[in-house]
Amino acid sequence: MVVKVYGPHCASTKRVLVCLVEKGVEFEVVPVDVTKGEQKDPEYLKLQPFGVVPVIKDGDYTLYESRAIMRYYAEKYRSQGVELLGRTAEERGLVEQWLEVEAHNFQPPAYELAMHVLFGPIFGITPDPKVAEENEAKLVKVLDIYEDRLSKSKYLAGDFFSIADISHLPFTDYIVNKMEKEYLIRERKHVSGWWDDISSRPSWKKVIDLYRPPI
Amino acid sequence: MVVKVYGPHCASTKRVLVCLVEKGVEFEVVPVDVTKGEQKDPEYLKLQPFGVVPVIKDGDYTLYESRAIMRYYAEKYRSQGVELLGRTAEERGLVEQWLEVEAHNFQPPAYELAMHVLFGPIFGITPDPKVAEENEAKLVKVLDIYEDRLSKSKYLAGDFFSIADISHLPFTDYIVNKMEKEYLIRERKHVSGWWDDISSRPSWKKVIDLYRPPI
Repeated sequence: MVVKVYGPHCASTKRVLVCLVEKGVEFEVVPVDVTKGEQKDPEYLKLQPFGVVPVIKDGDYTLYESRAIMRYYAEKYRSQGVELLGRTAEERGLVEQWLEVEAHNFQPPAYELAMHVLFGPIFGITPDPKVAEENEAKLVKVLDIYEDRLSKSKYLAGDFFSIADISHLPFTDYIVNKMEKEYLIRERKHVSGWWDDISSRPSWKKVIDLYRPPI
Repeated sequence: MVVKVYGPHCASTKRVLVCLVEKGVEFEVVPVDVTKGEQKDPEYLKLQPFGVVPVIKDGDYTLYESRAIMRYYAEKYRSQGVELLGRTAEERGLVEQWLEVEAHNFQPPAYELAMHVLFGPIFGITPDPKVAEENEAKLVKVLDIYEDRLSKSKYLAGDFFSIADISHLPFTDYIVNKMEKEYLIRERKHVSGWWDDISSRPSWKKVIDLYRPPI
């Protein structure tokens, strides 16, 4: 059964796609044009009642929330492809910790920054330089903590690549390649090395090449 | 080794405590007075660099982020106490989905509501009725989706209790018992029944009785 992934051009969906590529799971994509509000269509809301992407269909099984989908496939195909959850309960715990940090500390300011520097007009938001500045300042504090962490371990959860790293790819790509904010990464030696490492993986190159953003 | 849990009086820490009680894991608590800003003390920041509660110490192992800690103990003591992750990969997937929904859809408006109705003055925030109103409106939409979900299954992830349900306890308690917003729950038959069920568990009664909020 081929996994159907809805909304491949969106940032959060790319997390899922990279995970599937790393695990060697076959998938097909179903376009959802969020610039036209297709994620609020009644048919789509039957799959994802909150009206956001992504969602997957795998036979009769439907699942949403990008980080939940990554966990599901990383666990279901544990012995296939790259191990993405660590090898012990303690390593898995740290994967979960950094996945939560990404969701609660990194993603919110990175998202606001992207909205007020890049994507606002597409979604009817007037870019506000003050909001952009405030969120960049928040991101600086978060990245300083990342720098300390990554000076002690190669990846966020330890010396192994995991879904916690994957989860950072789409918005760090915006920071480096779309918003002229690359200095936020390059001013931090260990964050910079980590970014070079994770963004040069064939899985990310494949996904970013196939499914260009609107967001 | 007894697990040390920092900041037992805070909402997010209570998730962890309920999980530990359900799994029959022994713990001791270490007070962190967030009304005095103790979560920003240098010694505390060595454990949790973002300066928030909770964090746990289990021998040499340190872990933060309440939902990550719940996952760790629910997994580590899988065969002990109540099963909190479902029994199959598909059930676990849905636990993860609803845990993410709680974190991204339920908690943010519930938190803002609590700040602007209950706790603002403690933390130097002037309560703003307009912000409270906006967040109550967001919560209404989320709870309507919950009502639909809970009309089809006894708990959020299915017909089994899980860490996804536990995660809702502290803020739903504020809504029902502290903010005079009980109608948000009672106007929805299935949400109301679910709340009665999960809040009558001995684990929650024990935790709420032992560790009263400031937040």
